[in-house]
Parts: sequence; structure tokens; C-alpha cells
Amino acid sequence: MTAELLARRDTLLGTGAPLFYTTPLHLVRGEGVYLYDPDGRRYVDMYNNVPCIGHANPDVVEAMARQQGTLNVHSRYLHEGILDFAERLTGLHGPQIESVIVSCSGTEAIEVALRMAKFATGRQGIICTNATYHGNSEAVSKLTRLSLSQNASADVRSIPFPETYRPILEGATEAELCDAYLARLEEAIRSLQASPEGFAGLILCSILANEGLPDIPAGFMARAAAMTRAAGGLVIADEVQAGYCRTGTWWGYTVSGFTPDIVVTGKPMGNGLPMAATAASKALVDEFRARTRYFNTFASSPLQAAVGLAVIEYIERENLAANVATVGAGLKAALTTRKAGHGFIGDVRGVGLFLGVEIIRDDGAKTPDVERTVAIVDALKDRGFLTSNAGIFRNVLKFRPPLVFRQEHAEAFLEAFDAVLAAQ
Amino acid sequence: MTAELLARRDTLLGTGAPLFYTTPLHLVRGEGVYLYDPDGRRYVDMYNNVPCIGHANPDVVEAMARQQGTLNVHSRYLHEGILDFAERLTGLHGPQIESVIVSCSGTEAIEVALRMAKFATGRQGIICTNATYHGNSEAVSKLTRLSLSQNASADVRSIPFPETYRPILEGATEAELCDAYLARLEEAIRSLQASPEGFAGLILCSILANEGLPDIPAGFMARAAAMTRAAGGLVIADEVQAGYCRTGTWWGYTVSGFTPDIVVTGKPMGNGLPMAATAASKALVDEFRARTRYFNTFASSPLQAAVGLAVIEYIERENLAANVATVGAGLKAALTTRKAGHGFIGDVRGVGLFLGVEIIRDDGAKTPDVERTVAIVDALKDRGFLTSNAGIFRNVLKFRPPLVFRQEHAEAFLEAFDAVLAAQ
Repeated sequence: MTAELLARRDTLLGTGAPLFYTTPLHLVRGEGVYLYDPDGRRYVDMYNNVPCIGHANPDVVEAMARQQGTLNVHSRYLHEGILDFAERLTGLHGPQIESVIVSCSGTEAIEVALRMAKFATGRQGIICTNATYHGNSEAVSKLTRLSLSQNASADVRSIPFPETYRPILEGATEAELCDAYLARLEEAIRSLQASPEGFAGLILCSILANEGLPDIPAGFMARAAAMTRAAGGLVIADEVQAGYCRTGTWWGYTVSGFTPDIVVTGKPMGNGLPMAATAASKALVDEFRARTRYFNTFASSPLQAAVGLAVIEYIERENLAANVATVGAGLKAALTTRKAGHGFIGDVRGVGLFLGVEIIRDDGAKTPDVERTVAIVDALKDRGFLTSNAGIFRNVLKFRPPLVFRQEHAEAFLEAFDAVLAAQ
Repeated sequence: MTAELLARRDTLLGTGAPLFYTTPLHLVRGEGVYLYDPDGRRYVDMYNNVPCIGHANPDVVEAMARQQGTLNVHSRYLHEGILDFAERLTGLHGPQIESVIVSCSGTEAIEVALRMAKFATGRQGIICTNATYHGNSEAVSKLTRLSLSQNASADVRSIPFPETYRPILEGATEAELCDAYLARLEEAIRSLQASPEGFAGLILCSILANEGLPDIPAGFMARAAAMTRAAGGLVIADEVQAGYCRTGTWWGYTVSGFTPDIVVTGKPMGNGLPMAATAASKALVDEFRARTRYFNTFASSPLQAAVGLAVIEYIERENLAANVATVGAGLKAALTTRKAGHGFIGDVRGVGLFLGVEIIRDDGAKTPDVERTVAIVDALKDRGFLTSNAGIFRNVLKFRPPLVFRQEHAEAFLEAFDAVLAAQ
């Protein structure tokens, strides 16, 4: 069966369409945090952030069917739904976020954010980290630096992402380290300012998810934002992974301690319905609209509005932020205790229900052990827990379950994790 | 009510979010070809191609609810749905179209197509028409030439779109005119070949929709495709508007008489669910995948697959291609008879259920009359028929109803149209 599906896939989607796990997993059904294969085998989903309020959430199914069965058209007619949604979304931010441009994917929303910053500043240069990914279009791909690969482009500069585990300055205090990373940002800003492109803005995932969820030296984000603004740039927070209560509060930038000018959201917004958004001040949004006459066929639709509202309302009603904070803190503490007796667990990081466990060789040099990371991911899958590996060296176990992941799921996972660790 | 919605919209979506009609229309419900305002007033939708099998189509609602209530995850797990859909979609083309990359919007799908052509040829230069629009991302916007505006970019050349109504060569035979337009294509190819960018491909909406649905000199498309291939380029057909039986057959390229290497589809695919696709030979898709490791969070999902299949199956089962061909031909013939006695009707063009009526001053110079066009669009709305104005001068009445638009709707429309014409 799997072999047949793989062969059809190779033909119909092309060779190399990405798949998870050494032996790919065939899924047929989901419910809450659970996913099921064709044999009825149940897996606890500890990877997927898109179905944030649970697979097959009935509120989403109901909102989707009701709205699609009532009206779903483009946004050049008046409709209250998208206004109610936009009001609700902007209301989840501080007063500087007033208006929103809705789109269909994180990539589209990042495109809008980058162009917004360029229009507002009249400059082109963007600074990102040296291990980031913000989307797959031609313009956004210029930022891609996964695996620390080079990606030269005149209007992009990258800075080393701030971290304490493999710092750019050995033996430094956290304050000295923060200064060292900020000096690199300063350098990048000056380099762009000295170039024809100029400096338009800084884009960061608020919790540096693709960088491997590093512990960020205290104060870095707030000072980086201040430095950016002092140089006339705008601060773009990519909240596609960090936002929507992933960290136990609505926005990753709250946890990381900074205030963005432009906020991009995506993945969890529609619990699986394609939708994304770029939110900012009305002045920034107005200028973008005036310059582009932006229209997006499928976006700002009654369908996106209804489903988007259902997701926000469910998160609020079920108080999922508190669940994420409590279960996440407990899981992180428990994972941290596993370092004792397992020299290959180099570090446990993250916040809320987005945790990373760095797997290394026990060689005193923190050498990434991708082979063991993949083996653990595969072994967890065989025991019914779906995770993945991430980070710049692909050696970070990534735990990012739906927000409805509860204490009982964490406990079941820890039992399986202990068995997998013991077998290493 | 409308004033309040407009004020909220201005705040929440920003000033200048596009709206239709001099007095914008507030919609609350749809069914088949009908749309309803809050007072229960019924409108015949003669504009929307996205809800191709009808507003609130129950098959789509059912497929959407069933799949979202069963499983909707990203594409790095095995799932049969997306393979069944890809098989069905590629099967609607000739044997050169074997594989597909699914995405969430026409813009994303055009991005894929352009990069596919660039990777395959190792060159960067793209040729489009001088009055086109293919999407809103930074890379795709480089092609935008609506209203014949300039948009200079080293890797893009534009050619005059082929037409017989305002031809580049007055008094020429159709064959001479075809040669004249092809000479401009030849010139653009040579210009790119002489530049560092080189020639990667030609992108055309198969029926030149945004150009105003011109009558294309016979043979142009086939010869342009042959000329492109002879110069080592690829032919990209933008079927976002032209495809999915809009012309009375599955693909606009069939009507226009050429065979593309890459086909982009979008708007009608999900009857309102965001989805789009870039289909090509397996070799082209494989190379794109190898070069990009492309992944799109919301695309190739079980939800897109279920809804996408439901749409294709409905079109086939209800034989909508035949409906479009018959009703469209009748409507076009009827519209053409209205030229007599109305000097401001300059031309009636298009095929299937995508028709354009050019409104001009009766001055012997075919001067576009945008004011009258807008007045007719507003008057038709007041009589319960939703249309819009398009084309390079915005003076073409655009009729593009859902594919379930029937003879009875055409007859009701013609009655209203005659009354509006009489009042001019």
C-alpha cells in the first residue's frame, strides 16, 4: 500500500515532494491531538501547529460548512464577516496595530510585510538571521538561510541569530554576549545604509523557531527593535509559528519582550483553511494599499472570516493560552530532568508548547548528532508520537503539538520518550 | 448601514481596499447564480468565476465539511486524496502534462511556473503582453502592465497583445497582422537573448482575459508557441481565468489553438476554497522540486483534494462545458445584434461564458467611453445583474458568470440589458 502510494506520488507530485520519517506515515483520520493510520493505529500529534484547536475541530467544521453554504465571495463587496474578524485580530495586539491585509499563506503575508516596509521607508534593504526561513516565493526566498547556507542578494543582510548555547563569543557573560550580537546588527544596518539599497527593516521570527528555538540573551530583542527604529527601519515580527498562543500567550513578541511595527500571522489562523495576515498601523496599511491596489482573490472572504473567528473564539473560550503555559512548562521541566544520565541531550529549550531538545555527541564539543535525532524521531513515531527534527543542524527534536495537547498526553509522551531514550 | 460598514472597513482593512460599484454592494447570501443583499434583494451574478459550480454548491459544502471533519493536514504524510486529485487534474490535459505542484493562490502558482521555466532553461527572461496581470507578489508584479502602464525590469519584456479591433497595423489583412504581432515577439526574444538574462519563456493568459478578450489573429498563439520553443523557451499558459470550462471546453488553450509546457490554474478550482496549481511534464516538476525542496503548508492538503475533486466531478457530471458553450454562444449572438442602433457598442468579443462588450464614443475613432461603461455597470446592478468593467481602458463590459448560468438567466439579463441600453 505504502509502496503504491509512493510510486503514484512520485509520478503525480514529482520526485522529491517532501515526506516525513524514514518510513513515511499514511494518515486517514484525525481528532483532537490524535491522528490515525489506515489500520486504526493511533498517534499523538506533537508536531502540527496548523490544527491548533485540534484535528477535525467541530467548531471549525461547523463554521466552514455554514459559511460556505451561505456565502463565500471575494472582498470587493461589503461583508461584515471580514470586518468582525479584522477587529478581533487587531484587538489582540497593542494599539499600534490597527489594520490588516489578509492573504492566503504565510509567504503571501511576508511578501506584503516586506513591501510595506520598503514603501514606508523608501528603502530596500532587509536584515534577517543567518538561519531563517520566511516563505517560498522568489522575493521571500531571498531570506532563506536554513542550514546556514549562503544566499547572496544585494538587498538582504543576515546576522548571526542570538543564542547562548553555541554563542559567537565563548566565555562571555550574557550581557556581553547580547552586546556582541547587537554589534553584528549594527554592522549590518551600517552596511545597508552605505549601499544603494538603504535599510528598510529587520524581520525576525519572534521566538527564532527555525533557528532551533535558542535561548536569546536577555534584552536582545527589545534593543534590536530600538536600534532598528533609531536607524529609520521597521520591525517585522514573523508570528506565523510564534503566535496564536503557541507560547502560552497570544504573541511570541510578548515572551521575547519587544513591540513590532508589522506582525505576520499564518499557519494556525484557519485550523487548516489557508489564511494569513499582515497587521500594522493604519498609516502603514494605507500606504501599502495606495501603492499596490492590492487584491487577493481568495482572501478577506466570508469563509476565511467565519473560520478565523471560530478559531479565535475557541482559543479564548477554552482558555488554551493557560493550557499551553501550564502543560508546556511541565513538559519542559520534565524534559530538562532527562539530561541527567543522557549525555546526548545537549539542551532543552523553548516556551509554551514549542519545545526543542538538542541531540549531540557526548564529546564535549556539542557536535550535532543528526543520525541519533532521526532515530529518536522514528522510534517515537513507532511508539505512537509524531515529532520531527529541526534547527540549523537538524539535530533538534521539535515538539509543537496542537494547543489542545493536555497533561495526560504529556505524561503518555514522557513514558514513551523514556523508553526511547533507554534504548539509545 | 453601508456608511457604517465603509467606515469600519476604512479603519480595519485600510483606506483603498478595492470595492465594486459607485455605491458598493452589501451581500449576505448566495445560491447558484444568485446573490442576495440584506433586504433580500436578488442579483444574478454575471461576474464571479470562482464559485464556478454555483454559490453555496451543496457538493462543495459536503466535501468541505466531510474532509475537514475527517482529516486535514499538510502534505508530508501520505494521503490518497491529493494523488486522486492530481491524477484527475493532469488527466484533463494532453500527455505532456504529467505532474502538478499545488499551491494556495494564482500568484503562488505563477511564481512556481516562472521559477520552473527559469530552472529548466537556466535563463531568466520572461515575455508577457503589454496589458497583463498574473498576480500580486514582488516577482509576479514585475509582469503587471494593466492599463498599458510601464513596468521596467531587466528580466521582463512585453509585446503588444494581439488583437484585431485596435490593431498595430491599420488596413492589414488578418494574416499580415498576425505576422506583425509575431515580429514583435521575435524582437522581444532577440532582445532577451542579447541580454545577460537570456530567454526563459513566454507567459500568456490563453484567452488574454485582462487584455479585454481580444479577437486574436488566427494562428498567432500556435506560431508564438512554436517560436518560443524554437528559441529554447517554455510556453506558460495562465488558465486561472481561461480554464475549467470557462470557454465551453476544459482549457482556453484548446480554443486558442496552442499547447503549453506549463499550465497554471487557480480561481475556480475550489469553488471558493483557496487553491491553485502548476502542472507540467514530470521532468519540469522534478527539476523544480530538486532545486527548491518546495513545501507549501496549506497546499496539497486532504481538504484541497476533496473540494478540488468535488468541483471537477460536478462539472463533468452536470456537463457544464456543454452548457457554457450553448448559453455562451447564444448570449454572444444576442449581444452582437445589439450593436445595430447603438453606436456606443464598439465590439462584442469572447467565447463561452466569458464575454466582453466594448463601449466607445460614437466618434469614428473607437474612443473608449469609461464613463458610459461604468454607468451601464451601475444600471445593470440596479436592475439586479452583477457585472464589471475590464480591459486596458476599463471600457469593456465583462460578463463571466458561474458555469451554472442557464438560458433563462441569459434571457432575463438581455431584457434588463435592453432597458439599460434604451436609457442611454
